[in-house]
Amino acid sequence: MDINSDLGESYGAWRMGDDAAMLSIVTSANVACGFHAGDPAGILRTLRAAARQGVVVGAHVAYPDLVGFGRRNMDPTSEELVADVIYQIGALQGLAAAAGTRVAYVKPHGALYNTIAHDARQGDDVIAALLAVDPALTLLALAGSPLIARARERGLTVVAEAFADRAYNQDGTLVSRRLPGAVLHDAEQVAERMLHWAQTGEITAITGERIRLQADSICVHGDSPGAVQMAQRIRARLDAAGIALAPFAAP
Amino acid sequence: MDINSDLGESYGAWRMGDDAAMLSIVTSANVACGFHAGDPAGILRTLRAAARQGVVVGAHVAYPDLVGFGRRNMDPTSEELVADVIYQIGALQGLAAAAGTRVAYVKPHGALYNTIAHDARQGDDVIAALLAVDPALTLLALAGSPLIARARERGLTVVAEAFADRAYNQDGTLVSRRLPGAVLHDAEQVAERMLHWAQTGEITAITGERIRLQADSICVHGDSPGAVQMAQRIRARLDAAGIALAPFAAP
Amino acid sequence: MDINSDLGESYGAWRMGDDAAMLSIVTSANVACGFHAGDPAGILRTLRAAARQGVVVGAHVAYPDLVGFGRRNMDPTSEELVADVIYQIGALQGLAAAAGTRVAYVKPHGALYNTIAHDARQGDDVIAALLAVDPALTLLALAGSPLIARARERGLTVVAEAFADRAYNQDGTLVSRRLPGAVLHDAEQVAERMLHWAQTGEITAITGERIRLQADSICVHGDSPGAVQMAQRIRARLDAAGIALAPFAAP
Amino acid sequence: MDINSDLGESYGAWRMGDDAAMLSIVTSANVACGFHAGDPAGILRTLRAAARQGVVVGAHVAYPDLVGFGRRNMDPTSEELVADVIYQIGALQGLAAAAGTRVAYVKPHGALYNTIAHDARQGDDVIAALLAVDPALTLLALAGSPLIARARERGLTVVAEAFADRAYNQDGTLVSRRLPGAVLHDAEQVAERMLHWAQTGEITAITGERIRLQADSICVHGDSPGAVQMAQRIRARLDAAGIALAPFAAP
Repeated sequence: MDINSDLGESYGAWRMGDDAAMLSIVTSANVACGFHAGDPAGILRTLRAAARQGVVVGAHVAYPDLVGFGRRNMDPTSEELVADVIYQIGALQGLAAAAGTRVAYVKPHGALYNTIAHDARQGDDVIAALLAVDPALTLLALAGSPLIARARERGLTVVAEAFADRAYNQDGTLVSRRLPGAVLHDAEQVAERMLHWAQTGEITAITGERIRLQADSICVHGDSPGAVQMAQRIRARLDAAGIALAPFAAP
Repeated sequence: MDINSDLGESYGAWRMGDDAAMLSIVTSANVACGFHAGDPAGILRTLRAAARQGVVVGAHVAYPDLVGFGRRNMDPTSEELVADVIYQIGALQGLAAAAGTRVAYVKPHGALYNTIAHDARQGDDVIAALLAVDPALTLLALAGSPLIARARERGLTVVAEAFADRAYNQDGTLVSRRLPGAVLHDAEQVAERMLHWAQTGEITAITGERIRLQADSICVHGDSPGAVQMAQRIRARLDAAGIALAPFAAP
Repeated sequence: MDINSDLGESYGAWRMGDDAAMLSIVTSANVACGFHAGDPAGILRTLRAAARQGVVVGAHVAYPDLVGFGRRNMDPTSEELVADVIYQIGALQGLAAAAGTRVAYVKPHGALYNTIAHDARQGDDVIAALLAVDPALTLLALAGSPLIARARERGLTVVAEAFADRAYNQDGTLVSRRLPGAVLHDAEQVAERMLHWAQTGEITAITGERIRLQADSICVHGDSPGAVQMAQRIRARLDAAGIALAPFAAP
Repeated sequence: MDINSDLGESYGAWRMGDDAAMLSIVTSANVACGFHAGDPAGILRTLRAAARQGVVVGAHVAYPDLVGFGRRNMDPTSEELVADVIYQIGALQGLAAAAGTRVAYVKPHGALYNTIAHDARQGDDVIAALLAVDPALTLLALAGSPLIARARERGLTVVAEAFADRAYNQDGTLVSRRLPGAVLHDAEQVAERMLHWAQTGEITAITGERIRLQADSICVHGDSPGAVQMAQRIRARLDAAGIALAPFAAP
């Protein structure tokens, strides 16, 4: 089992998250590439810390929307989206080489992540970008999303992820953030939930049914002290239960 | 002898230069990386055209100043400048891979180019960036500048360039653009001047003396119809005289 | 009758359109505010030229998407959109004061223009922005769009515009650019069409029916030599027919 | 006596400073305008809070350098700098009108602030910008700087400010941040120092001499919990001593 988190999301004078703390918890780091967050110097610092800790690095590619933190829907043309994703992966590859590590996978961010989970056109654009830069790049995608099969058909290795602090519908999709109960806040309960899932492959949907959720990575957040603490609890419970934690991709 | 020019400098809906025309003239293309010009989709189009024409590609790295076209002096910290240059080289490497070519060299742009010709600190930052990404990258630098020796000491391959349309002082430095006669406008005269220089290594300074100018590449511009025509004349004169034109770096 | 056009759309080193030519044709200038195009120095030059020519100035507000020229759909929150529109109007007001003129109206640009023609939420946000800055600002909107009634209900003065070079459906909406015949290219034919409409209020739909189109301004383009020529022909035909041309708003 | 501080410096998802806390301490708020910090929605929130608290608002104009937080030197042309400053003042005026307040003064930020304290050309550009938008705008400037006389000669009202947490040289200039002792960290000591200065007009230079420092505003920072606490101590000491605190400009 892998644990991933979004890192490198500071920008210039603005801090976000506690990268040092998270790098001692996670096995894979989704590092911002400058389009929704991350300036080159800050990204390089995060990459060097990840390299020191042996945490595997992925490119956290996004729409070009710094002020909106990549969370707003956009409709780029395919030509634009393919090139934007390649540009970001390449930029991170350059910085990763300088940090003594490499980009092993790609995880789209925010609105792009949500859109390609179901939008075939933009999903194909992201797939095309990975294939164009390096077909050995793994794609980290939403468990249960149609994107997974599309990407595998085109030859990409895909790893699915579960969200530690999100409620699931009975059909395995995420409960919309706009609905009550969509986000879980109790660290101990979330850790227990993730442990149970890691051991059985089953998770309790918001409707009460137990559903199967196929994934090889757990996404945790680190953008607040409470989030870091939750991530630590999840890690501690998995460790204590003897669940082997390891990155899904080679460093 | 090599001929290089700045390409890929359109941005979104805004066009600049005639990349198609210039790619039939030059042997090396300095391609914008997004900081002073160039959006990912436009850069990718230019790289694909360069790959088709067999023109070697270099990263035209710059200060982050889109509205100023990278022509304004800035004083980034070393940490910022090193990371900014790595980021841009990496981004272009990613797009070059997608276009079926590769980044063979780096030529800083505008204010960064002028600053590092004499500023040791920023020069060392750019050198460090190249060494960090790929020590095999060639640096394209101003003929006669102290930067050349500094970069060679650190193990980089450096190629010096002469400017076709600029007047030179007696000491081999460029006449400041603020002085009369700094920029040459007569295509035929410039072509003749470049041919003479390519054959003898000598060029006539603005003061009338003939000086030696050590360089292996000629920089030509393509940002206006007149500039393209001048570049064509230079190429034609060199071709007619049997001067072998070839990129200084392997494609 | 008023003629309006988009101006001030250069950005830094990149030129777009021929503002000088257009300012001798139009009575109202939609001036870019920096979010889709226009840097402050360039905007100020355009405003000074507009002031000299007695052309009335409007704020051409847009989504924050320079690389996409404001042509891509986005889904800002209401808080973001209201503030973005106010910011742009204010910035242009400041520059207009410096140029000796003032902002008399607002015309949203590109994807924002198209979205608010039918999207009530974003339309209300734009209306709220105008009311917050200055309720005396006129809104220039698509003829026949539901936005017009909404804005009038809230107390804004609204002027509708017709597009000179676009085909219309039988219901008075624009033929989608994706369909053949959507854009008209023959300057003489377009000028004749506009003259007939100005005299009768009727225009021929793409299906052949004559429809009524209620509008008090004609939008012309100036982003190519052909576009400028078409705008000149329209102006010349209206002038020759004795149609009084005047801005809809006081300068 | 006035107390001013830099506010509205969050950007999109990134927080900076505690605007609510500072608005209960200061009498004048230097509000970011989007070039070094501040997105329109965040700026508007800060302006509304300032209006509620009766704190007077100034435009904290800067070089266009978001990633460098406006702290890096740049050399814009006069045409660029004048227009950039006007644009920012206008944008803030628009948002201030929407918030029910107005822009009463201008305080340049960061590298621009430091540069114009002594650079006559850029100083004149900033002066020209204020005169062009509204000659009634007050300029808030570094106590003892040559800028003050230049701006007054051109008819501007100028208010000088002292920095609460900075050491002064014997000639009244600030001790460079690169030197030891340049920044004061003890809240109680700083509050005592400011009180003494407010009562006597004298401050102890880093060399031990007592010097006179002519200013009508104290600049305090709020970008860390310690900074807010220091600002509170200064305010409390001045209040306790019966020093009347009031904005230098009318709201």
